[in-house]
Amino acid sequence: MTDRRTVFFISDGTGLTAESLGHSLLSQFEGLAFRQVRIPFVDSPGKVEECIAQIRGARALDGVRPVVISTLVNPEVAARLREADALILDFFATFIAPLEAEFHARSSHAIGKSRKVATSLDYTNRIDAVNFTLAHDDGVSNVDLDQADIILVGVSRSGKTPTSLYLALQFGVRAANFPLIPEDFERKKLPDDLAHHREKLFGLSISPERLHRIREARRPNSTYSSPANCRYEIDAAQRMMTREGIQWLDSSTRSIEELSTAIMQMAKLERPSY
Amino acid sequence: MTDRRTVFFISDGTGLTAESLGHSLLSQFEGLAFRQVRIPFVDSPGKVEECIAQIRGARALDGVRPVVISTLVNPEVAARLREADALILDFFATFIAPLEAEFHARSSHAIGKSRKVATSLDYTNRIDAVNFTLAHDDGVSNVDLDQADIILVGVSRSGKTPTSLYLALQFGVRAANFPLIPEDFERKKLPDDLAHHREKLFGLSISPERLHRIREARRPNSTYSSPANCRYEIDAAQRMMTREGIQWLDSSTRSIEELSTAIMQMAKLERPSY
Repeated sequence: MTDRRTVFFISDGTGLTAESLGHSLLSQFEGLAFRQVRIPFVDSPGKVEECIAQIRGARALDGVRPVVISTLVNPEVAARLREADALILDFFATFIAPLEAEFHARSSHAIGKSRKVATSLDYTNRIDAVNFTLAHDDGVSNVDLDQADIILVGVSRSGKTPTSLYLALQFGVRAANFPLIPEDFERKKLPDDLAHHREKLFGLSISPERLHRIREARRPNSTYSSPANCRYEIDAAQRMMTREGIQWLDSSTRSIEELSTAIMQMAKLERPSY
Repeated sequence: MTDRRTVFFISDGTGLTAESLGHSLLSQFEGLAFRQVRIPFVDSPGKVEECIAQIRGARALDGVRPVVISTLVNPEVAARLREADALILDFFATFIAPLEAEFHARSSHAIGKSRKVATSLDYTNRIDAVNFTLAHDDGVSNVDLDQADIILVGVSRSGKTPTSLYLALQFGVRAANFPLIPEDFERKKLPDDLAHHREKLFGLSISPERLHRIREARRPNSTYSSPANCRYEIDAAQRMMTREGIQWLDSSTRSIEELSTAIMQMAKLERPSY
């Protein structure tokens, strides 16, 4: 017997939604230990039997029945899974009925309908946004900045690149990013390329301790990574952003998802996530 | 009155999980029209009152009551929201009780617990993976390929870059990618740098029509983008991947999420998504 319980996220799609919701639920139970297993693409009788075998194995190993969090659209597959010796939390079965009653309509219960279908337009939007973001990473180009939806600014290694890429991949947002560097602070002026795009500018800041650790890993024992320089740059950048009326967030205390969603909200950009 | 119904995704976090599950549920109702609104970071009495006002506005505009799909952890905020004139599908309220009974434990009902907390380790993993992926995009570098978790191969514009970035951002996977080019097909050999990493290689293919459209947008009327050349390269790449025993997927019929999840599964890489 193990001292933890196994939780399965089972879906006929990627399972990412089931996993994400499952994480939220499990994080409410502090002090309990879980082994979390995502099983995607369970869309046939053969695959559901494999799941049931895995559940049985975990049951025997852990000594307690597993939890299954599922988003299975196909009613036959979902019904077979419910026969497993586990606590089954089935999102579709739970929520589709009240929606059918509300809409006075039957759902199609069609596998694949729930998948994020890669339509040509979706795909093109996201790829275009990723290409734009890569071409405008770290101030590499000031061409076509008027086509940017958002321009992130901040000191080197404050989290601009991953946040820009997340905005592009998740929302199809064209997110450029520009570093704020010591020369900007000495001139006490934003880089000239950015002055015309004030309304698209959002800032990232970071704690001096974290910035020092990140920079130290790249350039050990340099002026660039020194605690004093990190503190100076962050302080100067925050004063510049405040002076220029640029809203900014601290990347030390928020995840990439939270930063991206909060920036979308500040920019009043409404885009569905893919 | 509008001819569609408004659906709100309301969360004290990013709302991305609620939106994702909501998309799956709504896609089951073909022929119905929805306006979908995500409201993130609803974590105070003031913000829940703003939500209720928005729900009231949508009710008046649409002539039917809205649907609210919520992942609110705070019981007071959730209880106030349930007073709105809407169909409320509340994930926490629905699923936390059976988990409490199963675990013989009380949940903490703490706001912020459900957030993907940006721990130093998480952050470092993801950033390192993104940096690795950017440094190994499009065969730009063969240095440190032994540190790659996955190496994607495929013809130019088959979807390698966005899929690699998604793997890095979502799963913290170090995903390099290498183009397969006409010289490789003429030599009938994989690029030399890749031969030592056969077990990490996974392929992407794409339909000739889509590849032609994507390439045509970048280099109109070129040999590179011509239908005949696209067909030749895809055919040659598929034969090479089959010959070399490289598993491959078609990026024309799967979303970036589906490609990434399926590649993780083929590579037997188990990583929680962030």
